[in-house]
Amino acid sequence: MAIPAETFFLRPDTETSLQQQIQQLVVEAILSGRCLPGERMPSSRKLAEHLGVARITVTIAYTELVSNEYLISKGRSGYYVAQNAPSRPKFNLPDQSENTGIDWSRTLGQRFLAHVPVMRPQNWRDYKYPFIYGQSDPRLFDHHNWRNCALKAVGRKDFDILATDYYERDDPMLVEFILRQILPRRGITARPEEILITMGAQHALWITAQILLTQRRTAVIENPCYPGLRQILNQTRCNTISIDVDNAGLPPEKLPDSLDVVFTTPSHHCPTNATMPVSRRHRLLELAAEGEFVVVEDDYEFEISFLKSPSPALKSLDPTGCVIYVGSFSKSLFPGLRLGYIVASEPFIREARALRSLVLRHPPGLIQRTAAYFLSLGHYDAQIARMGRIYRKRRSIMEQSISEERLSLTTQGTFGGSSFWMKAPDGIDSTKLAMSLRQDGVLIEPGSAFFATDEEDPGHYRLAYSSIASARIPDGISLIGKKIREARR
Amino acid sequence: MAIPAETFFLRPDTETSLQQQIQQLVVEAILSGRCLPGERMPSSRKLAEHLGVARITVTIAYTELVSNEYLISKGRSGYYVAQNAPSRPKFNLPDQSENTGIDWSRTLGQRFLAHVPVMRPQNWRDYKYPFIYGQSDPRLFDHHNWRNCALKAVGRKDFDILATDYYERDDPMLVEFILRQILPRRGITARPEEILITMGAQHALWITAQILLTQRRTAVIENPCYPGLRQILNQTRCNTISIDVDNAGLPPEKLPDSLDVVFTTPSHHCPTNATMPVSRRHRLLELAAEGEFVVVEDDYEFEISFLKSPSPALKSLDPTGCVIYVGSFSKSLFPGLRLGYIVASEPFIREARALRSLVLRHPPGLIQRTAAYFLSLGHYDAQIARMGRIYRKRRSIMEQSISEERLSLTTQGTFGGSSFWMKAPDGIDSTKLAMSLRQDGVLIEPGSAFFATDEEDPGHYRLAYSSIASARIPDGISLIGKKIREARR
Repeated sequence: MAIPAETFFLRPDTETSLQQQIQQLVVEAILSGRCLPGERMPSSRKLAEHLGVARITVTIAYTELVSNEYLISKGRSGYYVAQNAPSRPKFNLPDQSENTGIDWSRTLGQRFLAHVPVMRPQNWRDYKYPFIYGQSDPRLFDHHNWRNCALKAVGRKDFDILATDYYERDDPMLVEFILRQILPRRGITARPEEILITMGAQHALWITAQILLTQRRTAVIENPCYPGLRQILNQTRCNTISIDVDNAGLPPEKLPDSLDVVFTTPSHHCPTNATMPVSRRHRLLELAAEGEFVVVEDDYEFEISFLKSPSPALKSLDPTGCVIYVGSFSKSLFPGLRLGYIVASEPFIREARALRSLVLRHPPGLIQRTAAYFLSLGHYDAQIARMGRIYRKRRSIMEQSISEERLSLTTQGTFGGSSFWMKAPDGIDSTKLAMSLRQDGVLIEPGSAFFATDEEDPGHYRLAYSSIASARIPDGISLIGKKIREARR
Repeated sequence: MAIPAETFFLRPDTETSLQQQIQQLVVEAILSGRCLPGERMPSSRKLAEHLGVARITVTIAYTELVSNEYLISKGRSGYYVAQNAPSRPKFNLPDQSENTGIDWSRTLGQRFLAHVPVMRPQNWRDYKYPFIYGQSDPRLFDHHNWRNCALKAVGRKDFDILATDYYERDDPMLVEFILRQILPRRGITARPEEILITMGAQHALWITAQILLTQRRTAVIENPCYPGLRQILNQTRCNTISIDVDNAGLPPEKLPDSLDVVFTTPSHHCPTNATMPVSRRHRLLELAAEGEFVVVEDDYEFEISFLKSPSPALKSLDPTGCVIYVGSFSKSLFPGLRLGYIVASEPFIREARALRSLVLRHPPGLIQRTAAYFLSLGHYDAQIARMGRIYRKRRSIMEQSISEERLSLTTQGTFGGSSFWMKAPDGIDSTKLAMSLRQDGVLIEPGSAFFATDEEDPGHYRLAYSSIASARIPDGISLIGKKIREARR
């Protein structure tokens, strides 16, 4: 007798095709021991009827399961669970329900959980007006060509090479095209030995901090500053000095007399978007040469520079090799990719490579190769050009709407970027404003997390336009204006 | 006048299609400023003639470049560099040739470069007899279905979700199928809150060591031991005690009275392959409960257990939650994938997640989703079954050849694995033996890197059969036997 079709149930699942859902059902039934080797499967007709799907769907699923050796086909008499079907071993196991023997508060030697308030809800896509920063916008990304590049990278020829453990190395093709096509956009020339691929800019900053900083060293950061960097520095337990930025970014003359590392975002200061003028860049490098400190240039968003020509990177002006340059594909491609890179002097890159290898070996080869194809075929440069056009349009709509609603911008002199740094009227706390706006479907990012202390004006907030369609911008800004007017009453 | 076709050259490159090579040529020429906006491209006929390719190949490349906005088509008059073609900014740059201003020996705060001898040449695939451990074998891997799963993951529907920054989260689909399809194979039941996806087992061990160990804590490791773990512990500066293993793995009665963490490989001890009997597993857990220490179970190769049924994982016997379980896809899928996982009590996983997020956010979503499909459609279990069959065959050929050549095995009682732990006759140094065998196209892995001190017998070596075809084994083993006999003369 065959296994009754009625023991199989489809779970509503829109992500997976019917055929694959049926495969999953059968695999699960065999692996769990519910269907045993030698048992006959329900006929494709019966199972199709029971599940309410086309018979061919079941037949294809069964055929696939035969090729995977879960089932065997015995011609007219139908499909059977294979005698050698994959199975799970059986054990007699202790009851794990009272799993409370360890005092974890004593056992944990180092703590990493920080209580950073969550500024972005996980379901930000469900909001109608997501003025949210740093996420991807499927409308902007050249998914079609990315998919083609991924296909190429996962093809047989590349796969056999990419499947192996690279130990500490990188995909030479990705390194080559970063050197040939990305770094020249920033005026940087480098050799392959001077570059390390990382799992995004966060990873690049983390590696850099581990190598340069100890409890006895001093780091300077900008205020306000990317909160992820502040977390990294806290964990190194170095002495951290925050310096207030102005409309031209970090003022070099305010640097302390003794320091080891400066972290800066000269292209677009994070989060104010201020661009550091070339004169300041030269001054910073002079001070670095005199004071023998290192400058970490986080060029996280250089591609998005469309208002004027971008300034050359600090790294390109650096005759002594004191600049460690951090780049990322998160803004130009997409953040879930987790790819970035460090460009620095060879002795530094060697250490960084050793640390990366200790922690995780290397970023997955298939991802590196996909990005390499995307670069080599010109899709990356085309993507940057397209993004620039769309961001320029969105930005001008943002400016007009902000002006109509009389909201206050706080920075001048920006070269582009994908956001505005705003200031609510006195007395308004942007965290409360943000929570209240969520009810209207509007997401803004409160500014408090960017500041070194809690004593700053709580009115700052960031409005990004990288994930919101142009047509939605005026209504979204109008809702923010309305909420602020209500709050002032 | 059109740009002369003669200024374009194909570089011999078997990895990339002709059409894509032509695209690259043109992109490079435009980005470098060699072809300027408004200039006319050579006709497809002329360029095809010059490059020696079919005209349609050039036409398709041009069409692709039009859609990427590098070129525009003006009907009969041909293709022109677009006025708005992507371009690179130009800078006046200082001379970077004397890039020697920084004294890196003083600037580096922490050093990570260890001088571990390279045991495996990068070009190991070019060797005829690669008895090399832990690399992938394209003959064993179900590349066809992996590719299909990758295609599905990079499809539009999944892509839009996977492209976003997950912050500290994982792909819920991968977590679900690890819980449903992998952990039951080890007798482990767990909740989604008790699992963290990592960039491979190395990353999992690194995270675990960071959280549990400080300079004031004591870790116990096996001797011999996976060298990557010893490097991780060195970097934490904890007190590390190495305990010699025997034919049944780590002997619990030799543990010191006071310790904080034990790292062990009970399924197949690394590198001897000894399997820890269930009685020892229970004893180890009793001691852990009494001594309030944590056991880190590195189950790096459990899938490759084909001689007897696998023993249940330590984690499955653990009523108090003192076991931190580390799994990896490197052996069952392929090492370049860089995917593994930690299963442990929720307070530990929360810290591990925070640390992972600080260092790199999360493993790339596309990779996680591809693996999830591979699991969900039953390919993973089918793959394990297939590998078991082939490894069993290779192992028996290995055993026969080893016996015929009278080479010495050192461990009994193994349940499978993908290698043998060998011992050369007294007086033979396996490092020299390995270097000498390379000339014959034979790769073996010398044992010295696995030991805590240099005082061990230098005759140990590892012979793996995960990357060598069955038909090559007898000749390879015979060459090893011959070399050893020569060395003894």
